[in-house]
Amino acid sequence: MKKNLLILVLLFSFIGIQAQENVDFSKKKEIISPEINADNTVTFRLDAKNAKEVKVQGDCIPEGGFLTKGEDEIWTLTTKKLNPELYSYSFYVDGVKAFDPNNAFLIRDVSTVVNVFLVGGGKADLYKVTDVPHGTVAKRWYHSPKLESTRRLTVYTPAGYENGKQKYPVLYLMHGAGGDENAWMELGRTAQIMDNLIAQGKAKPMIVVMTNGNADQTATPGESSEGFVKPIFMRPATFAGKTEAAFGDIIQFIEGNYRVKKEKAARAIAGLSMGGMHSLVISANYPNTFDYVGVFSSALLQPKDSQAAVYADFTAKLKAQRDNGYKLYWIGIGNSDFLFEKSNEYRKLLDSLQFKYEYHETSGGHTWSNWRDYLSEFAPLLFQ
Amino acid sequence: MKKNLLILVLLFSFIGIQAQENVDFSKKKEIISPEINADNTVTFRLDAKNAKEVKVQGDCIPEGGFLTKGEDEIWTLTTKKLNPELYSYSFYVDGVKAFDPNNAFLIRDVSTVVNVFLVGGGKADLYKVTDVPHGTVAKRWYHSPKLESTRRLTVYTPAGYENGKQKYPVLYLMHGAGGDENAWMELGRTAQIMDNLIAQGKAKPMIVVMTNGNADQTATPGESSEGFVKPIFMRPATFAGKTEAAFGDIIQFIEGNYRVKKEKAARAIAGLSMGGMHSLVISANYPNTFDYVGVFSSALLQPKDSQAAVYADFTAKLKAQRDNGYKLYWIGIGNSDFLFEKSNEYRKLLDSLQFKYEYHETSGGHTWSNWRDYLSEFAPLLFQ
Repeated sequence: MKKNLLILVLLFSFIGIQAQENVDFSKKKEIISPEINADNTVTFRLDAKNAKEVKVQGDCIPEGGFLTKGEDEIWTLTTKKLNPELYSYSFYVDGVKAFDPNNAFLIRDVSTVVNVFLVGGGKADLYKVTDVPHGTVAKRWYHSPKLESTRRLTVYTPAGYENGKQKYPVLYLMHGAGGDENAWMELGRTAQIMDNLIAQGKAKPMIVVMTNGNADQTATPGESSEGFVKPIFMRPATFAGKTEAAFGDIIQFIEGNYRVKKEKAARAIAGLSMGGMHSLVISANYPNTFDYVGVFSSALLQPKDSQAAVYADFTAKLKAQRDNGYKLYWIGIGNSDFLFEKSNEYRKLLDSLQFKYEYHETSGGHTWSNWRDYLSEFAPLLFQ
Repeated sequence: MKKNLLILVLLFSFIGIQAQENVDFSKKKEIISPEINADNTVTFRLDAKNAKEVKVQGDCIPEGGFLTKGEDEIWTLTTKKLNPELYSYSFYVDGVKAFDPNNAFLIRDVSTVVNVFLVGGGKADLYKVTDVPHGTVAKRWYHSPKLESTRRLTVYTPAGYENGKQKYPVLYLMHGAGGDENAWMELGRTAQIMDNLIAQGKAKPMIVVMTNGNADQTATPGESSEGFVKPIFMRPATFAGKTEAAFGDIIQFIEGNYRVKKEKAARAIAGLSMGGMHSLVISANYPNTFDYVGVFSSALLQPKDSQAAVYADFTAKLKAQRDNGYKLYWIGIGNSDFLFEKSNEYRKLLDSLQFKYEYHETSGGHTWSNWRDYLSEFAPLLFQ
């Protein structure tokens, strides 16, 4: 049997050359790239015989590095020892960006696509898919009467949701400018972080709702009737206050369609950058709705003279939120973040109002490394 | 207000350079690539000043084509007029594969990642996201006692499923070698095809279950505890008969967890290539289970002396399936497919048994273009 099977496999592989479009069966030599070595250095390899220069750049090697061509004509570079993290990189071959043909894993960040790899250990073990019960991740559409559109969101329901009768608390998790309802899943590793934290007993089982915070966009590029449009960073409606004003539509949809606890103690809202602003504005405009608020790398960012009602009388709204009470108001920011000063200003405003918050200052800047980290720190504090 | 907003946007964009990793704010000149022109030609553009040669290749330009450098130093090529289709392509810069930095849309096909674009009109309008009610797409895990593993699948529930009481029929849709539970969604445009066919009244609302047919793999690469492993075309367990033997676990999971009609008349199974073989083998081994069978670009592919019980006494199983009856047995294949002769052989076997089938011969080969087409033809025939 085995011999015949081998023949069939070889035959299949051979005729496969013409068989499956896009699939390259012609490789002579298997190249492994990136290779994560036992000491947490990482080796990149590229077969680019005619190239004069091959460079790699990414958050794993921010200064960039030139690969060297070996006797086997393969270009290689080994990084220094890396800390546990999900890293990204691109190759530049004679100045032209190329991706690593031996790494099938890419993530889009706004309009830029990069290769990724994961160095495990420490906090990065939360970002791995592990053999624990997995939640369900659904892409679902809801109607927003306020935005007059049918819109897409991502819903993570924890393992056991479908087969139980228990009601769950909900974390609403909001992306930054240029992101969409996919960002927290793909760049943020939310499903992996939640699966792992819940399985370890570190976070309560909860539903996580990842919305699309661009009021003028119904779904991530490619998933709406706009077609394969180029993703852009700053959309026209970004500071119009519409996302915040229409947020009630999302709460109503989730509470009408999922087995959730419909009470303040079971609602959390958090977001990064623009989504952090959304979270603080929404929680202040719905002052008796959320017991948990997370503001990641953000502050009050809207123009001071904005006419949008959600930004008006903001100090009065914060006072009302303070007086109504809440369990946790969590602010996380990196000390090299370009919004660091803005965040300090916002904390001064809160201090002046005796508005209590927990402050989590880290190193680093406006990065997904920090946002994965903040979610991992924030989620265990919820619904306790 | 507008002036202040503009200042803020500019500030945000400027400091954004250091702000969001991977996001390139430094572009001087906006390059549109690919541009789908009014006459259905497509223009590719690439900024690669130092390159000596830039080539584009893909199913939109199978013979490949060299771009020419204009006075503005941008390389361009315009294709001939293209038929409606979802197309893929890659650039080759001085012989090194590069992807189009101005096109954020990529799809992985086994271990190869390619840029994609869509030329609308005709059948390709079914592949577009349109403003019709959208189904929900969930990535969910189930336990397979027979395979002794917890495994991932994709479930499309049609618009209205969550808010109704109606019970739905189910189409089980299986990928080919090298594919997984994501393939029919990403390369096959299943959600778009089903949304559009259902909205047009051409197909009955149905649940579509896209399984992982690799018995030795629990989920698509990157979504299992194996980590970011390189996807391979021919897995060791491909012809071991395990996927077919364990299929009852999937039916049991779906019928135990979704609002579905649990009857032969409400079950369909179809697949492409390896998945076509799975479909015909499963439907013969569960002879009173499926009223609808779709065999796309496939045949009996397993080694003739395989010891797996699901392949044994196959003629007797087909006779039993014939005698039990069914509503539709649909065979689709392209006349330049490398399995065309194998498919003819299989039809001769069916003919010799007076086993009725519908035969749909097309041009083309073993391609996703055909498989999207076959799904679009097959789905309207189901559950009528």
